[in-house]
Amino acid sequence: MNREIQLIKRPESTPNHDHLKILNTDTPQPEEEEVLLKTLYVSVDPYMRGRMNDVKSYVEPFKLHEPISGGVVAQVSDSKSSDFEKGDIVTGNLQWKEYVVSKANSLRKVDPTLGPVTTSLGVLGMPGLTAYFGLTDIGQPKQGETLVVSGAAGAVGSAVVQIGKIYGCRVVGIAGTEEKTRYLSEELDVDVTINYKQQNVKNALEEACPQGVDIYFDNVGGDIADTVYPLLNKFARIVQCGAISSYNIPNDQGPRLQMHLIKSSALIKGFTIGDYQDRFKEGFDHLSTWLKEGKLTYKETFQEGFENIPDAFFGLFTGENLGKQLVKVANPE
Amino acid sequence: MNREIQLIKRPESTPNHDHLKILNTDTPQPEEEEVLLKTLYVSVDPYMRGRMNDVKSYVEPFKLHEPISGGVVAQVSDSKSSDFEKGDIVTGNLQWKEYVVSKANSLRKVDPTLGPVTTSLGVLGMPGLTAYFGLTDIGQPKQGETLVVSGAAGAVGSAVVQIGKIYGCRVVGIAGTEEKTRYLSEELDVDVTINYKQQNVKNALEEACPQGVDIYFDNVGGDIADTVYPLLNKFARIVQCGAISSYNIPNDQGPRLQMHLIKSSALIKGFTIGDYQDRFKEGFDHLSTWLKEGKLTYKETFQEGFENIPDAFFGLFTGENLGKQLVKVANPE
Repeated sequence: MNREIQLIKRPESTPNHDHLKILNTDTPQPEEEEVLLKTLYVSVDPYMRGRMNDVKSYVEPFKLHEPISGGVVAQVSDSKSSDFEKGDIVTGNLQWKEYVVSKANSLRKVDPTLGPVTTSLGVLGMPGLTAYFGLTDIGQPKQGETLVVSGAAGAVGSAVVQIGKIYGCRVVGIAGTEEKTRYLSEELDVDVTINYKQQNVKNALEEACPQGVDIYFDNVGGDIADTVYPLLNKFARIVQCGAISSYNIPNDQGPRLQMHLIKSSALIKGFTIGDYQDRFKEGFDHLSTWLKEGKLTYKETFQEGFENIPDAFFGLFTGENLGKQLVKVANPE
Repeated sequence: MNREIQLIKRPESTPNHDHLKILNTDTPQPEEEEVLLKTLYVSVDPYMRGRMNDVKSYVEPFKLHEPISGGVVAQVSDSKSSDFEKGDIVTGNLQWKEYVVSKANSLRKVDPTLGPVTTSLGVLGMPGLTAYFGLTDIGQPKQGETLVVSGAAGAVGSAVVQIGKIYGCRVVGIAGTEEKTRYLSEELDVDVTINYKQQNVKNALEEACPQGVDIYFDNVGGDIADTVYPLLNKFARIVQCGAISSYNIPNDQGPRLQMHLIKSSALIKGFTIGDYQDRFKEGFDHLSTWLKEGKLTYKETFQEGFENIPDAFFGLFTGENLGKQLVKVANPE
């Protein structure tokens, strides 16, 4: 007895239960150089929304009537590979199934001495690396500069604000609940927080950035980005990590931004974490060192149960998660 | 008897004769380290529209009821500086006056052996340097890449397409008249031309760029830029030189572009020529060498008479100029 979650219809705007379906399926058997895995934790991430569209992108679109795949922590329950044995905890890009077979060479063992195994899906995984490379390589943070971060209390944003502090930036964090802004200011030492659902973002940003904006780490795009552009300093850098406010709006329109870039000789650079594949070790080493030293902390939000993966994913677009959103599917054996 | 052109009202959209006024004024006298200049050629440039707005930018806004200033070629008619003597041809950023006094140290002598003196306002001046640094530093052109240039028959664009060919790019040039597209293909060896006023730009661009777009040198922004973004290749570079289609549209709106940047890990970088001040000699040396070798050519469009400067400026926004738009004010003595 096994279950999987398929994409059964492509969403045109906000994804909901019309688009994802839980199906009963067989438990597969591993062949040579494969392992059978029991799914423990599933990561839901905003970028997955893009894969639900049938358009050319940096990753292939999800196929209709096939399982969704994404970041997963799992336990080896049967191994036909000499690299893994029963009981090992691994992470990889895996299909959303309670039991799943994977090629051994696409998995990575999780080192449990570095922190809870879920950190391999968060601060020591894709979101942490995204924060590290986006901020350091594109953002080029310098002591005393003003860094604005949108989606600041999410998995990526909460790492960005802390790395910004490590580099000596004055950090302004934008988020959508009081719990999030309190977390940012009280636990992550963010200098100024803005609650975009309760404050006038334009006024609050102008007040928060009397010296202008040197770096904007953008997870959201949309109206919030529009209010940042006029505040850009000469040679400002915009790290275009995400644009979650546009993901569910076909042909989203807004003020044209080219003139802001010209006026401030500013740069916007999009990226995806695969661009930095050759440097993952460097990023991982920095993140795990900072974590050990207590300079980097993290929060996780859990839902429980395989059947709640879709709701956890949908919740990303209403801002329900504080830090990394995960679904706990099963206990290790 | 002298004349000058003042900004008497800030345009909210397209500038016209309500905004610029020709006034009679006195002929000034030079003091120590100053020279009196007779204006020979005046350059009108799209960027000047931005200075007519009362907003913070990389250059101060023009002041109301004061003369406009911009690139000018002039002849020294009286000198109180040991660096210049009567008869010298100079260039500088000067007020729009028939006779104008300037500090000697803000002028540069024009070397007439390099070409007609007007080239110091075009291919060997600000537009040429803009093309050179924008394309080489931001665009990073590589052999065999596809370079798309909007405003391709203008002062900057016509230099960009040729420098692109020097670097071995396949060049697609977008312009708005048959005369311009013929100039691009017949005289500048542009591989594919698109007449945006007569063709469906989206279809034409897709056909012109079967391998996608690696570099987009953008002088115009607006609808044309919108059609380029979906065609960007992985790690594409957009040189945001201008956005002339937005200059006269307050709060111009369009499709949000962030997701295109993320999908293709692309970069947009705005700039102004002052950013490269320390490297002007390098740029000038390259441009003058290419000009001498015949690898770089140029076109100039002239209006005659000081009183026609405003119309020449207005004409930039209706695409009347082929190559560099100049106004001939007087003959040298």
